[in-house]
Amino acid sequence: MKENLLSKISSPIDLRKFSEDQLPQLAKELRDFIIEIISQKEGHLGASLGVIELTIALHYVFNTPEDLLVWDVGHQAYGHKILTERKNLFHTNRDLNGISGFPKRSESIYDTFGVGHSSTSISAALGMAMASLLKGETEKQHIAVIGDASIASGMAFEGLNHAGVTNANLLVILNDNAIGIDPSVGALKDYLTAVKEGKNPKQNNIIKSLNFDYSGPIDGHDLPKLISELNRLKKVKGPKFLHVITTKGKGLQLAEEHQVKYHAPGKFEAKTGKIHPKNEEGLPPKFQDVFGHTLVELAKQNEKIIGITPAMPSGSSMKYMMETIPERAFDVGIAEQHAVTLSAGMATQGMVVFCNIYSTFLQRAYDQVIHDVALQKLPVIFCLDRAGLVGEDGATHHGVFDIAYLNCIPNLIISAPIDEIELRNIMYTAQLGLEYPIAIRYPRGRGEIVDWQKPFNKVEIGTAKQLKKGSKIAFLSTGTIGKNVNKAIPLSNQPNIVSHYHFPFVKPLDKTILAKICNQYKTIITIEDGVIIGGFGSLINQYILENCHPNKVVNLGVSDSFIEHGNIKELQQICQLDVNSIINQINILI
Amino acid sequence: MKENLLSKISSPIDLRKFSEDQLPQLAKELRDFIIEIISQKEGHLGASLGVIELTIALHYVFNTPEDLLVWDVGHQAYGHKILTERKNLFHTNRDLNGISGFPKRSESIYDTFGVGHSSTSISAALGMAMASLLKGETEKQHIAVIGDASIASGMAFEGLNHAGVTNANLLVILNDNAIGIDPSVGALKDYLTAVKEGKNPKQNNIIKSLNFDYSGPIDGHDLPKLISELNRLKKVKGPKFLHVITTKGKGLQLAEEHQVKYHAPGKFEAKTGKIHPKNEEGLPPKFQDVFGHTLVELAKQNEKIIGITPAMPSGSSMKYMMETIPERAFDVGIAEQHAVTLSAGMATQGMVVFCNIYSTFLQRAYDQVIHDVALQKLPVIFCLDRAGLVGEDGATHHGVFDIAYLNCIPNLIISAPIDEIELRNIMYTAQLGLEYPIAIRYPRGRGEIVDWQKPFNKVEIGTAKQLKKGSKIAFLSTGTIGKNVNKAIPLSNQPNIVSHYHFPFVKPLDKTILAKICNQYKTIITIEDGVIIGGFGSLINQYILENCHPNKVVNLGVSDSFIEHGNIKELQQICQLDVNSIINQINILI
Repeated sequence: MKENLLSKISSPIDLRKFSEDQLPQLAKELRDFIIEIISQKEGHLGASLGVIELTIALHYVFNTPEDLLVWDVGHQAYGHKILTERKNLFHTNRDLNGISGFPKRSESIYDTFGVGHSSTSISAALGMAMASLLKGETEKQHIAVIGDASIASGMAFEGLNHAGVTNANLLVILNDNAIGIDPSVGALKDYLTAVKEGKNPKQNNIIKSLNFDYSGPIDGHDLPKLISELNRLKKVKGPKFLHVITTKGKGLQLAEEHQVKYHAPGKFEAKTGKIHPKNEEGLPPKFQDVFGHTLVELAKQNEKIIGITPAMPSGSSMKYMMETIPERAFDVGIAEQHAVTLSAGMATQGMVVFCNIYSTFLQRAYDQVIHDVALQKLPVIFCLDRAGLVGEDGATHHGVFDIAYLNCIPNLIISAPIDEIELRNIMYTAQLGLEYPIAIRYPRGRGEIVDWQKPFNKVEIGTAKQLKKGSKIAFLSTGTIGKNVNKAIPLSNQPNIVSHYHFPFVKPLDKTILAKICNQYKTIITIEDGVIIGGFGSLINQYILENCHPNKVVNLGVSDSFIEHGNIKELQQICQLDVNSIINQINILI
Repeated sequence: MKENLLSKISSPIDLRKFSEDQLPQLAKELRDFIIEIISQKEGHLGASLGVIELTIALHYVFNTPEDLLVWDVGHQAYGHKILTERKNLFHTNRDLNGISGFPKRSESIYDTFGVGHSSTSISAALGMAMASLLKGETEKQHIAVIGDASIASGMAFEGLNHAGVTNANLLVILNDNAIGIDPSVGALKDYLTAVKEGKNPKQNNIIKSLNFDYSGPIDGHDLPKLISELNRLKKVKGPKFLHVITTKGKGLQLAEEHQVKYHAPGKFEAKTGKIHPKNEEGLPPKFQDVFGHTLVELAKQNEKIIGITPAMPSGSSMKYMMETIPERAFDVGIAEQHAVTLSAGMATQGMVVFCNIYSTFLQRAYDQVIHDVALQKLPVIFCLDRAGLVGEDGATHHGVFDIAYLNCIPNLIISAPIDEIELRNIMYTAQLGLEYPIAIRYPRGRGEIVDWQKPFNKVEIGTAKQLKKGSKIAFLSTGTIGKNVNKAIPLSNQPNIVSHYHFPFVKPLDKTILAKICNQYKTIITIEDGVIIGGFGSLINQYILENCHPNKVVNLGVSDSFIEHGNIKELQQICQLDVNSIINQINILI
């Protein structure tokens, strides 16, 4: 039996003591280690398996952490984490107070740049490389590892376009596996595929045209080739580009065969890769599926309906419309800016566009929402998936800013349904024709209503409703966090003095009901699963002060700090948005 | 004497009645017409002069407005406006209630998509083209005209990357003049220059690699060539690309020779192009120059300082540092996303980065500010130029959302100095070293202090100060709008009951002084030159309600609607932020 090599590695210094011919064994061990832990813990699997050899080669050849390595997105960085002083912490991956699922500066000196959203690595590494030049550190290496889905995003192009006119010591490694979370799309992907298949003569190279020293494509699972190529590139000055072909899920057969499913497969059997069958019968649906199936239902009746997703067909469940009505449902790749303005362009021609973007990723298209949609009053229907706290993905992915950053945009309807049925009805209402664009936000994960496929009802835009009567305190909620209020009130010390109003619309605000609430209750509590500053509560505050009401007001929501990773329950406790915290809040105010 | 052709044109229908050989004369007349009016009125000159022939050819060949024409940015659309029913309104260009300086859907059916910010045209036109396909309108043409500076922006790449895998009837016309507002930069620009100079064999073509039918480059001032090529392309199905070479400022010699100056030259002599000499002696400086010269002063003393501008070296006055210390000042092109993350990357290596972005354009990099800078607490110094109302550029360019969209971001210092000297001192303080990133916002145009180059003073982050004492009403202002408050108070009915506090920092908010203010004054008025929702006032509201103060509160600022174009004075009146409105407000509250 061979001795275990991985057990000897605490940091890359240990790795570099190995001989080159020991590295394939290490690769196997590293793969097994990841599979073993992720099979039990859940997490992102396929991406890290695909870059095991690349990860080893990079830390073997380059002098990390002196040489600076930036992983784009970071789904693929598990191997990196394990080799850089976090092997013994890896079992805490994505846990509250455990290590993050993404590279994170505060976690390790080897994590040179925090990531999570795609396509930032080239800009960040170029900034580091330009800084090194200015400091006279001409031998220092700066490496960005970016996937073929991420490099097609506009921001990555901006980085390449700038890097090409510098003499910065930047190495961009394209980890080309033809898949992001879902299969890659777009003309660049077709081009790269042609390059891989040898159909494009090397002199016809987009990357070369941008002044990069291009090499590749090479086999990203061939350690000797990787090491020799990286050693060669170490000596090349200026911007250079290595095209590496890898297989997502490499080394676990089922993961190679079903790459979308094994991006984050949940628990599975380590040895075979078989995913433990889940009994989902009788469970309420995921909000994602409520969106996806409802969209298909509506699109079958309304032929003006279009579906747009920037690279999240599976995650958002847009895949259902893409399967059923492919001529009207489009995955545009990691291109949120384009997705929004494309939707606007379609809307000018009378199309009813459902543009589904994760709340956190709509931050990427903020200007387009203002400038191309709202200013022109184009009635695009934004469905903001994963709004609120998202759990284990952590600070980079929480959708907690959306109400605040959308609130200040004129002409925009902002909606946060309390449950699956209201989500359906608001989607139904929106496609009937609105004068303004609308953003509908809903959370990640399951709702609570099993029997959700009810006939559609039209919703009155801008109206709130009372869910529970009480005499003294009025709870004003928006979105699914209202469910926690529903549960908390009966458990408080004096349930009958607490009223609950649900606002499915943050804008326009129901001022008719608000006037009554302000007159009727001494104390008003607002609650939302988003930041307090600029949020739903701030609109209520403004209304109360504007109209000189003497109410006592409490704003509940996410306070002014970034929330880390953990499960939703834990994070709600931290933000004091869980049922118990709400009960306590009521009891204090009684 | 030839008869005047332009006078016969109301719409493109009239244009199409001319014979091809009449068009050069029309081009001359159209140029003269623009020069005549812009020489007296001010406006954007060079871009429109450069596309006169292209504009005529497009409306001559294509069946606008049935065929859909999208101008990127829109600085170049004066000829288009004049030929499309707005000749007699053109003298109202950029006036309050006059026509907009940019294409605008509500203004004309020929303006198919409102623009102002760059690089949206490909996405918008592709959306239109995909909609037409779905509607079975297979003969319909969809044309995006985009400059070489704009096409280098990430969003444009996203549009091209998607278009290349569709069969949409999209024609992208690259208006390549090697200049945006300032000369174009980047690897793509170098590549295009090589193509123009015949140094790149045509088969090596980035655009072709993205599946476009590429043609060109052709001379964009050669009407017969343009017309024949457009007629040919009309029959080509799917995505196609025409590379057109033009000269910015074409037809006015001085404008051709000094392209940056003649982008928007102010008033000039129509015949010669000579710009009327301005006597600027004794005038207070532009805030832009305060920024630009101060940055050079600081950078000479602090060698860690870096300057970054995304394509606005002249507008922002970053040009001074680019001239004086070129090795540390960079124009990265129209690439706000890249600019922000590049700055973050540099900051990880200890650089002190001044990243200057117009307030309205920082909307393009919103995610990067949150995800790459604030989350990692990287002390990037954002200088937000043209914050607040910008005047004649109108709704697309007002910098009124910044406080609101930045307010909700944790770890970010937000600053709005009241005058030139405070701007200098905050810049000075920021480069001494902060724990957090900072955004410093200041307006377009001149301040009021002639003798502004005073020795630097360190500012206490997060402290406000009293500018005037009074007994009953407290005015709380942030930013230069405080100057209007200074002027209004003495002219109100009872000046001595009105206090004025200036908050140079929106975040962190000076809660010590706020506590005193709330206790001391019955009425509090907040004022800011930005949107009220989520703005400075909303933080004051939150503080007051949180601490159960019984103050009457009035929030002044931009209400929840888009503000159109006009001069600053007029727009301040509309927003009730001018001195008279403030006086009235005080008198009402007394």
